[in-house]
Amino acid sequence: MTIASTDADPIGIAEKLIACPSVTPATGDVFTVLEAMLKPLGFTVDRFLTGEAPDGPVENLLAWRTTGPGPHFAFAGHLDVVPPGNGWGSDPFTPEVRGDLLYGRGAVDMKGAIAAYVAALHRLPEELPGTISLIITGDEEGAAVYGTLALMDRMAAHGLRPDLCLVGEPTSSQRLGDVIKIGRRGSVNMWINVDGVQGHVAYPHLADNPIPRLVRILSAIDAVVLDEGNDWFQASNIEITNLDVGNPTTNVIPAAAQARISIRFNNEHSGAELVDRITAIAAAEGGTVEAKISGEPFLTEPGILSGLVAGAIREVTGVEAELSTTGGTSDARFLSRLCPVVEFGLNNATMHKLDEAVALDDLRGLAEIYRLVTERALAG
Amino acid sequence: MTIASTDADPIGIAEKLIACPSVTPATGDVFTVLEAMLKPLGFTVDRFLTGEAPDGPVENLLAWRTTGPGPHFAFAGHLDVVPPGNGWGSDPFTPEVRGDLLYGRGAVDMKGAIAAYVAALHRLPEELPGTISLIITGDEEGAAVYGTLALMDRMAAHGLRPDLCLVGEPTSSQRLGDVIKIGRRGSVNMWINVDGVQGHVAYPHLADNPIPRLVRILSAIDAVVLDEGNDWFQASNIEITNLDVGNPTTNVIPAAAQARISIRFNNEHSGAELVDRITAIAAAEGGTVEAKISGEPFLTEPGILSGLVAGAIREVTGVEAELSTTGGTSDARFLSRLCPVVEFGLNNATMHKLDEAVALDDLRGLAEIYRLVTERALAG
Ligand SMILES: [Zn+2]
Ligand SMILES: [Zn+2]
Repeated sequence: MTIASTDADPIGIAEKLIACPSVTPATGDVFTVLEAMLKPLGFTVDRFLTGEAPDGPVENLLAWRTTGPGPHFAFAGHLDVVPPGNGWGSDPFTPEVRGDLLYGRGAVDMKGAIAAYVAALHRLPEELPGTISLIITGDEEGAAVYGTLALMDRMAAHGLRPDLCLVGEPTSSQRLGDVIKIGRRGSVNMWINVDGVQGHVAYPHLADNPIPRLVRILSAIDAVVLDEGNDWFQASNIEITNLDVGNPTTNVIPAAAQARISIRFNNEHSGAELVDRITAIAAAEGGTVEAKISGEPFLTEPGILSGLVAGAIREVTGVEAELSTTGGTSDARFLSRLCPVVEFGLNNATMHKLDEAVALDDLRGLAEIYRLVTERALAG
Repeated sequence: MTIASTDADPIGIAEKLIACPSVTPATGDVFTVLEAMLKPLGFTVDRFLTGEAPDGPVENLLAWRTTGPGPHFAFAGHLDVVPPGNGWGSDPFTPEVRGDLLYGRGAVDMKGAIAAYVAALHRLPEELPGTISLIITGDEEGAAVYGTLALMDRMAAHGLRPDLCLVGEPTSSQRLGDVIKIGRRGSVNMWINVDGVQGHVAYPHLADNPIPRLVRILSAIDAVVLDEGNDWFQASNIEITNLDVGNPTTNVIPAAAQARISIRFNNEHSGAELVDRITAIAAAEGGTVEAKISGEPFLTEPGILSGLVAGAIREVTGVEAELSTTGGTSDARFLSRLCPVVEFGLNNATMHKLDEAVALDDLRGLAEIYRLVTERALAG
């Protein structure tokens, strides 16, 4: 049996969360509101701050409820939102229903999904044994250095380790349920520098022009084929995104030349391997590389978790979900170290845009999908 | 016989010219001082202004004296100087003799050489038939668009065409007389642009990255061997002097990429031919080229004129001059359209530097060399 209550209305819950401004990095009220919803449902709540300005402080909330021996199902998400920008039709932090849409910053990314999950918790059978946890950060849209990783440390400290994890990012594309993300590509940026010796173009023997060496490095990089893609990922891709010498003087040979590349890579590579590979190419011409790995790839091969989610979607919406690995990075890249992770949530058409809005029916449908997934995950 | 006079002292003349500030583009006093020196020597003087701000106005001075039928010998130079900069040991526009050096902006480049030539005129035999002209501009160090070319038009209007021309640029390197320039390389700068379509690195199929195409263009340019040099010129040389994309955003594929190249080329090429060649290489990858030809090469093959100058140097200094075609461009590239041209002047060690200075003995020696060259050129 399920608990029926007006507190179980995902629209009302979403309105309460949207009404707390929480531009990234987020702390405070929005977490207090969520905590007040979870405690009556029997959850233990651990809130803590991490980080310092400018990327922090960040608030994180870990909530868990164990109703007996059984599987541990985790729902992960974020309460921070991107800045609203100017030009909204209504105040971005005053939730407003117009027609069959609820407007407000975070409506789809992803206060709406968190609201749907809280609503789902209200409707779960009480007697179901197992553990449910919520892993909620205020640092996903920004630097993402003080959020989910800190929450994972906190879980370990509490002896919590999920068996399955669902991330509520807005993955739906045209209709609720059409896309589940079972993986994400990794991302790394590298800055290639070649030093030379400045001089006058009329006396090139007294100079050492770094540009031809940089051009040879970039030619070699452009010739690299990382892979051809695989069953679940498109081919890894290297883009040269910038060239910079900054020499205003036509008769001067510059002292240094830089380029920047960006690689989006699938699960056949690691960030470190790619950095080594580009570093070797650059070193052959005397160049050096600085790298920033934004995320490693992850893949949860189609199996129990994606099957549970796809089945629930089919039952609630009639839609056959596509299993995708496209798009940018998400916090699922961290959580995938713990257990199988998939991402599924609302329609992302208005995410990060003006007049972000969610269809009321989508909130209701998502709550029902989340209920089915959680119930069946705990049933094992 | 020669005219002996204190007016024939090249040091005093140089001091008068240095005392008139004449940062490029130059007009006014410094030309008035020179005119006042030439008129008593029987020269007709035509001064005129050309050009407009910011590269003008520029003053030009054409002076000529015909003493009977015979060869026409021209001396060419400039009265403008580069800005002095800060940090001089004495005021750059207050000529000052310290030890055996005369300090002041323009001491070697090239008020000193003009002073030496005026001193030489004082010492020439009066009865020598022929024509002597001075072709003096205030626009050599700057844009060089309103100077010598305008003087050449003026000469044509007066029916003047020299048979031999000596340009008084500071060509000496270690000792007065060690280098005569008999040619100069040409110079052309080109800006290569490749347009693409901006996009996000995660969705490269929606973008068209211009950088790999620019890299292929630059690889092809770097592989070009223009020539191996010849008897009088070193090999022509291409330098890539700048790369510019200006994309600050790591996950954005840029819309356009630019490079700049500088070619110094010998007399086996013309500027237009090189522009066509680079344009064709760029076009193969969809790139376009804008070019600015700063100067075509010139060569006065060793002959009467270089022989006259080398012989006078040998007599006065005992130095065996090297015939060179190295270095940047000079106004000799224009004058070489009229007649054989060589360049010979003071030691260039301090040109364009702080504390520009000329050895007093070099001024005296140069005046004597110029006298011998002019006398023998008129003698035929
Ligand atoms: Zn999100
Ligand atoms: Zn000069």
